[in-house]
Amino acid sequence: MTTGCSFCDGEGGELLWRDARCRVVLTTEPFSGFCRVIWNAHVREMTDLSAPARAHFMDVVYAVESALRARLTPTKMNLASFGNQTPHLHWHVIPRFADDSHFPDPVWASQQRDAVPRPLPDDFVAALAGDLAAMLGASAAR
Amino acid sequence: MTTGCSFCDGEGGELLWRDARCRVVLTTEPFSGFCRVIWNAHVREMTDLSAPARAHFMDVVYAVESALRARLTPTKMNLASFGNQTPHLHWHVIPRFADDSHFPDPVWASQQRDAVPRPLPDDFVAALAGDLAAMLGASAAR
Repeated sequence: MTTGCSFCDGEGGELLWRDARCRVVLTTEPFSGFCRVIWNAHVREMTDLSAPARAHFMDVVYAVESALRARLTPTKMNLASFGNQTPHLHWHVIPRFADDSHFPDPVWASQQRDAVPRPLPDDFVAALAGDLAAMLGASAAR
Repeated sequence: MTTGCSFCDGEGGELLWRDARCRVVLTTEPFSGFCRVIWNAHVREMTDLSAPARAHFMDVVYAVESALRARLTPTKMNLASFGNQTPHLHWHVIPRFADDSHFPDPVWASQQRDAVPRPLPDDFVAALAGDLAAMLGASAAR
């Protein structure tokens, strides 16, 4: 049975870390290293969460930002939480590069150019998962 | 003398609240109630701030989100920090409406339709400034 919410029905990407409250996934978006941090429960707005829950959620976002900066040395990090299409709290955590397809515009704007290919290392998922476990504690079982 | 950074050289909008660390402005973007929370110092990434500074910055973002939700009852709130063009930390805090020009896409994507006009009440700036002062304490002098 499905709920009609893609983040309730599925993981939302390749799982890198999770705890009882939220999870980090690597997406298949055409931007190298584009991760999402997804609140596990179906909650609509940041101000619908308690202050401690918000703080925990953002600590996970900052850990992802830190790990992506250390691994990929992006030109800039982009953070965004919209939920207009899927009103289930999630943060886009996007390393941006001056030669990516949309820079300096947001990734949702018009494409500027063909992106310079930026393949991730073969061990990227394991390495980033390890970084997150080191910063946030061991990932919980599903 | 200018620094070349628009958020160092200017306020960035109509001032609603400020303290020693950050400020809230109402923008002139064509989305009713589109506010920004701007860090006063020229800092690039959230993970370049200390954890207490990040927490303070986000508390101000959440106060703006709360005030906008209470005043405007948007369909959804959108939060984003990019800084690709102006690498000086700032958060876009955007009330979104199902009949706005870009919904459900981000405001940086292609326009979907002519927006239904949504004029702000005459006392909006004073009212929102009052809401923020009630939540965050009195605004500091410039």
